[in-house]
Amino acid sequence: MIPSIDPVDLAQRLIACPSITPATGAVFDVLEEALVAIGFSVHRFVAGEAPDGPVENLFAVRGSGGPHLAYAGHLDVVPPGEGWTGDPFTPEIRGDLLYGRGAVDMKGSIAAFVAAAARHADHPGTLSLIITGDEEGYAVYGTVELIRWMTANGHHPDLCIVGEPTSVSRLGDMIKIGRRGSVNMWVEVAGTQGHVAYPHLADNPIPPLVRILSRIEAIELDQGTEWFQPSNIEITDIEVGNPATNVIPAKATARLSIRFNALHTGEALAERIRAICEEESPRATLTARISGEAFLTEPGALSDLVSGAIRDVTGLTPELSTTGGTSDARFLARLCPVVEFGLLNATMHKLDEAAAVQDIVALTDIFGLVIRRALGPT
Amino acid sequence: MIPSIDPVDLAQRLIACPSITPATGAVFDVLEEALVAIGFSVHRFVAGEAPDGPVENLFAVRGSGGPHLAYAGHLDVVPPGEGWTGDPFTPEIRGDLLYGRGAVDMKGSIAAFVAAAARHADHPGTLSLIITGDEEGYAVYGTVELIRWMTANGHHPDLCIVGEPTSVSRLGDMIKIGRRGSVNMWVEVAGTQGHVAYPHLADNPIPPLVRILSRIEAIELDQGTEWFQPSNIEITDIEVGNPATNVIPAKATARLSIRFNALHTGEALAERIRAICEEESPRATLTARISGEAFLTEPGALSDLVSGAIRDVTGLTPELSTTGGTSDARFLARLCPVVEFGLLNATMHKLDEAAAVQDIVALTDIFGLVIRRALGPT
Repeated sequence: MIPSIDPVDLAQRLIACPSITPATGAVFDVLEEALVAIGFSVHRFVAGEAPDGPVENLFAVRGSGGPHLAYAGHLDVVPPGEGWTGDPFTPEIRGDLLYGRGAVDMKGSIAAFVAAAARHADHPGTLSLIITGDEEGYAVYGTVELIRWMTANGHHPDLCIVGEPTSVSRLGDMIKIGRRGSVNMWVEVAGTQGHVAYPHLADNPIPPLVRILSRIEAIELDQGTEWFQPSNIEITDIEVGNPATNVIPAKATARLSIRFNALHTGEALAERIRAICEEESPRATLTARISGEAFLTEPGALSDLVSGAIRDVTGLTPELSTTGGTSDARFLARLCPVVEFGLLNATMHKLDEAAAVQDIVALTDIFGLVIRRALGPT
Repeated sequence: MIPSIDPVDLAQRLIACPSITPATGAVFDVLEEALVAIGFSVHRFVAGEAPDGPVENLFAVRGSGGPHLAYAGHLDVVPPGEGWTGDPFTPEIRGDLLYGRGAVDMKGSIAAFVAAAARHADHPGTLSLIITGDEEGYAVYGTVELIRWMTANGHHPDLCIVGEPTSVSRLGDMIKIGRRGSVNMWVEVAGTQGHVAYPHLADNPIPPLVRILSRIEAIELDQGTEWFQPSNIEITDIEVGNPATNVIPAKATARLSIRFNALHTGEALAERIRAICEEESPRATLTARISGEAFLTEPGALSDLVSGAIRDVTGLTPELSTTGGTSDARFLARLCPVVEFGLLNATMHKLDEAAAVQDIVALTDIFGLVIRRALGPT
């Protein structure tokens, strides 16, 4: 006999665990207990060392064979900051809203999915939850490690919902079918220090840096795609650090931030900028740090499935969007089609984060329809 | 009866006064006593307040009417620093060298000129000394104030020797007939801070700064002149100061240093760069600080006079040069033709500054010939 789960009650019990990123321990105990009660097998493991860890991860699975629907999310939260009306880790319903850090991002969403899974227990195929304790932080030992473990242990989802808060004004008005990628780059040009009165004895690194930046500024990466806005390069910093007016400096550095759509990869962009550096100066070097690749799940079966469930519960047809920053969907998209859908994001990462109680209830209904339609009727 | 003056003895008495810039007091007392003894009228005054002052200045004059030959110099010295073999303010002759801070820059030169003036006391016309206590420092209340006082009091030299150490390897191998000017400029571009994911809500100041700097880099100010090397622009610093990789910065600043020949003025250069700034961005502003204008005394009567005296005493024909940094000649050139000539500059501003005793003696002979030939025989 599968017990029913009240999603608002479960959300409150998760919020009551102060799981500031990276998270381990109690918050996972609460979730594991709920999942085991409704028939899931739960595997938990801790990965990584300081400073990027330790991070706790949880994989829960029920059923076997295909199709395999996965829900991915995170139990860690960003620090609450000062100035909350109440205690951020004492969940409290005031009026129509459930307050607490993580209410929308994303303990309310996880609770809704677990409650939906409780309702639809006797499904064909496989239902799984991919839950990390580090999405908000370095994300080095979180979802990436979970995917490695799942692959090694033969768990291969066919489609995946990431429960991030994607709604803007009303629950269901937006889902994400992709995200832009992000890469930071540092261009450093070495020079030879000297006195401005004797420039022939020095080698000023600033002119080649200016030439490199001029060429970078002239790049139009693309004009956008059907689903993405144009990719964009911003030069975010230039540093020379030369206090002396009569000295030619020894070094000049610039930093770029590129947000790119699925027409590009971080590494290809780094190669393109590196080629410019090498053409302009033998003393220029490039360092790139890829925060995340772009991904796109072309509109189709998965987005239709989620959109349909949203429409049937809320009456809204969600906008399919690729805006905003990065999420763990960038990793999960390597496994299978991924869309992101969850609560309203207006208060995420802010003081007095809160989810509407009726939204958590409606989200449970939507997730219930998604499970039933993805895996087949009981 | 005019007494004779031993230039090496007078140089030692001047060195014994620790006149670190800006200078006042004792070192001027020593000079005044020597000048009064050989028939000069001496006017001393203190100008300025901290931090650029107070500065003592001295104008000494003997004779009247034309021609009027002036000698200009400074009694202040740069700080000695640590590590001298002896005490920097206890003059000491070891071997052929007189050691002490200011030996070449430029108490030895002043002593030589005073000794030469003692030898040639009965000249037609006017002989004057323009001596400041602040050439090495801010130079705000030094020679500029002396020129103002001289102009207000009817002292108008026809030609001027600045006694800076211009010789390189042997006394008399180089005189300066000009100097490049120097101006520093700061280009600041204001922007609007924002998040790199939402560039349309921000205004990145770096692209217009890069465009401005590209245009500045492309400028060829001139190809040099018969007497000057080409003028040169160096971008010496760029500062944005943005530590956050995901933030578009609010401001970007670059600093330029221009060393320019007599084809330009500091203000005209500032106007030219300012026009580029205004063309590229309504949010770009330019600040210019002119350290000194270029000057050139075309080779002619004055350089021939000094070169001839050098040749007759040393056998060398001096190179006529415009190299090196700025000197007070940049101010004096507004009054009359100016050339610079003095002792060897190898040890100026360094530890164990020293002048060859025989060079001080020979310089006295050279200055003596200059006085006699400029003003006419006694």
